[in-house]
Amino acid sequence: MSDFKISGVVPPVVVPDTPEGALDVPSFERSINRMIDAGVDGLFFLGSSGEVAFVTDERREQIIREAVRIVDHRVPVLVGVIDTETERVLEHGRQALALGADALVATAPFYALGGMAEVENHFRILHEELDAPIFAYDIPVCVHVKLPWKLLVRLGEEGVLAGVKDSSGDDISFRYLCEANAKAGHPLSVLSGHEMVVDCAYLSGADGSVPGLANVEPYGYVRMWKDAQAKDWEAARKEQERINEISHIFDVTSGVVGYGAGVGSFKTALWLMGVFDSNMMIRPVKPLEGANVEAIRKVLVENGLLEA
Amino acid sequence: MSDFKISGVVPPVVVPDTPEGALDVPSFERSINRMIDAGVDGLFFLGSSGEVAFVTDERREQIIREAVRIVDHRVPVLVGVIDTETERVLEHGRQALALGADALVATAPFYALGGMAEVENHFRILHEELDAPIFAYDIPVCVHVKLPWKLLVRLGEEGVLAGVKDSSGDDISFRYLCEANAKAGHPLSVLSGHEMVVDCAYLSGADGSVPGLANVEPYGYVRMWKDAQAKDWEAARKEQERINEISHIFDVTSGVVGYGAGVGSFKTALWLMGVFDSNMMIRPVKPLEGANVEAIRKVLVENGLLEA
Amino acid sequence: MSDFKISGVVPPVVVPDTPEGALDVPSFERSINRMIDAGVDGLFFLGSSGEVAFVTDERREQIIREAVRIVDHRVPVLVGVIDTETERVLEHGRQALALGADALVATAPFYALGGMAEVENHFRILHEELDAPIFAYDIPVCVHVKLPWKLLVRLGEEGVLAGVKDSSGDDISFRYLCEANAKAGHPLSVLSGHEMVVDCAYLSGADGSVPGLANVEPYGYVRMWKDAQAKDWEAARKEQERINEISHIFDVTSGVVGYGAGVGSFKTALWLMGVFDSNMMIRPVKPLEGANVEAIRKVLVENGLLEA
Amino acid sequence: MSDFKISGVVPPVVVPDTPEGALDVPSFERSINRMIDAGVDGLFFLGSSGEVAFVTDERREQIIREAVRIVDHRVPVLVGVIDTETERVLEHGRQALALGADALVATAPFYALGGMAEVENHFRILHEELDAPIFAYDIPVCVHVKLPWKLLVRLGEEGVLAGVKDSSGDDISFRYLCEANAKAGHPLSVLSGHEMVVDCAYLSGADGSVPGLANVEPYGYVRMWKDAQAKDWEAARKEQERINEISHIFDVTSGVVGYGAGVGSFKTALWLMGVFDSNMMIRPVKPLEGANVEAIRKVLVENGLLEA
Repeated sequence: MSDFKISGVVPPVVVPDTPEGALDVPSFERSINRMIDAGVDGLFFLGSSGEVAFVTDERREQIIREAVRIVDHRVPVLVGVIDTETERVLEHGRQALALGADALVATAPFYALGGMAEVENHFRILHEELDAPIFAYDIPVCVHVKLPWKLLVRLGEEGVLAGVKDSSGDDISFRYLCEANAKAGHPLSVLSGHEMVVDCAYLSGADGSVPGLANVEPYGYVRMWKDAQAKDWEAARKEQERINEISHIFDVTSGVVGYGAGVGSFKTALWLMGVFDSNMMIRPVKPLEGANVEAIRKVLVENGLLEA
Repeated sequence: MSDFKISGVVPPVVVPDTPEGALDVPSFERSINRMIDAGVDGLFFLGSSGEVAFVTDERREQIIREAVRIVDHRVPVLVGVIDTETERVLEHGRQALALGADALVATAPFYALGGMAEVENHFRILHEELDAPIFAYDIPVCVHVKLPWKLLVRLGEEGVLAGVKDSSGDDISFRYLCEANAKAGHPLSVLSGHEMVVDCAYLSGADGSVPGLANVEPYGYVRMWKDAQAKDWEAARKEQERINEISHIFDVTSGVVGYGAGVGSFKTALWLMGVFDSNMMIRPVKPLEGANVEAIRKVLVENGLLEA
Repeated sequence: MSDFKISGVVPPVVVPDTPEGALDVPSFERSINRMIDAGVDGLFFLGSSGEVAFVTDERREQIIREAVRIVDHRVPVLVGVIDTETERVLEHGRQALALGADALVATAPFYALGGMAEVENHFRILHEELDAPIFAYDIPVCVHVKLPWKLLVRLGEEGVLAGVKDSSGDDISFRYLCEANAKAGHPLSVLSGHEMVVDCAYLSGADGSVPGLANVEPYGYVRMWKDAQAKDWEAARKEQERINEISHIFDVTSGVVGYGAGVGSFKTALWLMGVFDSNMMIRPVKPLEGANVEAIRKVLVENGLLEA
Repeated sequence: MSDFKISGVVPPVVVPDTPEGALDVPSFERSINRMIDAGVDGLFFLGSSGEVAFVTDERREQIIREAVRIVDHRVPVLVGVIDTETERVLEHGRQALALGADALVATAPFYALGGMAEVENHFRILHEELDAPIFAYDIPVCVHVKLPWKLLVRLGEEGVLAGVKDSSGDDISFRYLCEANAKAGHPLSVLSGHEMVVDCAYLSGADGSVPGLANVEPYGYVRMWKDAQAKDWEAARKEQERINEISHIFDVTSGVVGYGAGVGSFKTALWLMGVFDSNMMIRPVKPLEGANVEAIRKVLVENGLLEA
């Protein structure tokens, strides 16, 4: 089993860009410090909402370097090493570890078609060749493969995996994962990425959460985790419901889809709230504008995150 | 409109590996020369069956460098610049052009979710920043986006795209693409990747084909292209039927799926035929073995590609 | 708004068959009475696990007639009116109401492709022409359409829908549905079909559940509903975990898939427990046999539902 | 092997409705006679574009009865017996045969999830209990199962299936089906439903086609079949290209999807051309109107099917 354990709130950090397409370091620092000050238990860089699919090798290095510098050991730093196949992921993993990452987060291989034999072999190679805790990132909407809970628990028991970041959208599989992990002696740190049902994930036995919306509203997620640890499920539920009102920044926009709508709404909220200096997106995605910005502003005002 | 035109048979080149996981240069050279000697009209490196999803930056450079050296201007060299998002594709494009590629082949962005606005913007940026003919690679099975024929023809008319490599599996869309391209003055070189129905693609108006199976049997594809140019459709059909018997190397294996089964069968056939020195696959995929090798051998023997 | 309200545990009733393919009325009666005696709050006949896709007009009438006779007003009777398009659903609705159904459960249209305009029109026609409470059955795995929560709440507010039976597998959409329904004055009775996470559905605000597994173990689901009403979420969670151990009857079989594996495991468990006289399935599905039966027996024994 | 053989053009007959939602018998008669006079080789009633998913038992009987009366043995009558599961399909099959159908067309089971064991058993039961030629209708877009060509040919060899109506959208699988069928002694009559690439289907070895667009333009399809029999592939291709211009009635509409757009465009064209008395659709689908009608009119005028 892996020695690395993590629990609580581990936001996937949204990355601010300058209008020229560079990393906006001051905004990045402001947002990271704000989340740590709010009490988060770790930070996950270069996840799906952290521009991982968009960054060049140079930008990836810059993001990790700045992240490690800014965090400065206050909380663990998890880094996404997300790429199409094993050799490329190994390169990203070595880079991240050399720069100071505490743990790595990898998806199943994608683009080339494969089966579970390749998925399992992939994680085994990462474990063998990288001296670091490996989290399996279960995100079928991006990689078009669902990681079976039986496989995950088995790889946890063998020490291949330290944990799971579940963004699978399959709450039944997630429940089985939590229950089987508990029966196996809890080898895996199981984190849920489903930011609108984190209370349910905790009730299901999750060790923590990876909520993108915690970039915007870290305080509520920190409180909810404390409620869950105190087994005050009514309080946790109410906190989740409050957060879910804010989450409608996702569905008040129109004419935009996918990453541009989702991460775009995070960046726009952070910009309106003064945490980011702009809501710029990396190419080929364009920033939200006009009525979409106003719709997000309205949600923030209604929920007390912004003055009218 | 782009000045770059290509027609005929343009095989996507399968890459041989050594048992140590290095590029097997002698096998690579043998296979490339064999296809050029057979009369192919171009070669496409780093396509889906050319290990593009698996290669590190270093290996990618080695493959392109060796490819350009071996081909030595005998036929045009198309290079796949396939990665998750625009900035990364731009880097690959600059690398490939610096190494001597004649044209670039790019898919829609993948992993991060987007819509057609991002797809169109992606191709426009590639065109603006890379001084090279760009082919759109339509491969929804890998990138989970179908490129609409109306968009492709429009981008052809505007000079953004030089051509299309269609592996979409949508023969109706392909037909409309060919017909609309013809009506627009034929701005696009339209190539079909559907190796088992190339005669139909030619009848539909395709300018050429990108058949993976031409690594194994280039002669038949070259003859079929000549038949099609001569409008001898009965001969083309018979050639396709003969080739399709060989194509059953894809479906005589068991217990393997996806890339390992498909590209694995190509490599195994090339190994059995003495073109490749082994049938090694790149990690995490494993080479075909045992009964699967024998089943492929049997198909090759039955079709006269190998002595019993 | 509809006057019909339902809450609590509403099992979708599994239908026993004789070896000759007839309805096994004594087994049906035994199972229904066992669930009512356990304290369930309603029964849902002719759902996806209730053979609705398999029954002829004659068998459908027999099932409804017997169901109404056996239940005898002890709990409300919901009847599935599930067919490809509106006119056919209307016929089934009239039949079910004439035979005594208290409420009807209808999916979106399927087989013929359509959009949300057709889905909305479908439910409006059902409401206008059938004098009965209509539940929308959200089951994209069968009908390949996801019902949007905004549409459902709007149709609830207009009185078109009395409730929703959610088997969508989308816990975020379900949460939004519950929250928006509450804000709208609770027009809809919202029931979850996700039998392995019913505690989470209740925490999310569900009015009740439709657990197929309650055919096998109704007592636990009845206790869990009482726990949830008492806001004793720790007790609810433990009950769910106990039930989930039993739910592994779903995944201990091999060589079978879909309905044959899922409903097949229910029937086999009920047969082994003496509630059903056999585990026969309706054609073209075959009953579980051999090692699959023994694997289910083992799960039942280990969980105290059967003596060793 | 089955004795029933069919080849050539077998349109799936579109059904006209009156504004009151009744079968418009005069329009039906006009359209059927027009296609037979044009020289079609058979007619397929109650296919996906023939309202099969929408009709009640009574309407189904009326359609078959009128079809058999109007056709009056001039060409074979194929009837779709398309429903969720086996027992229901058997009832439709007995009804269709009693009313005079010459052959039956059945899909794989749908709605309830299953595997290939259920699909095979389904076709075997249909064959055993219905004394009629059975065609397998391969339409994954509606039933979400792809029929494997190896299974189809095996069932042909055993006499279970008389033929295949392929609307799978998989041109490679279709090619393998044609080639394997030929090698097996041609037990199956293989028909393609891909109306925009019928020339390619014929070149691939199809015995005939089932083009919905032949309701609008039967003459071209009849000529193309003669061209194909004469192996005049250039003429066939030109005919297909001419037809494909007409086929843009499918993509000039906006705001409509699926059946309403596709069959809606057929009905609107037939109405504008005076074959149908209206373009009414069956509930919950609405007829095309306004700008969509005008866009279709424009296509018809441009292609000489309607005067300006």
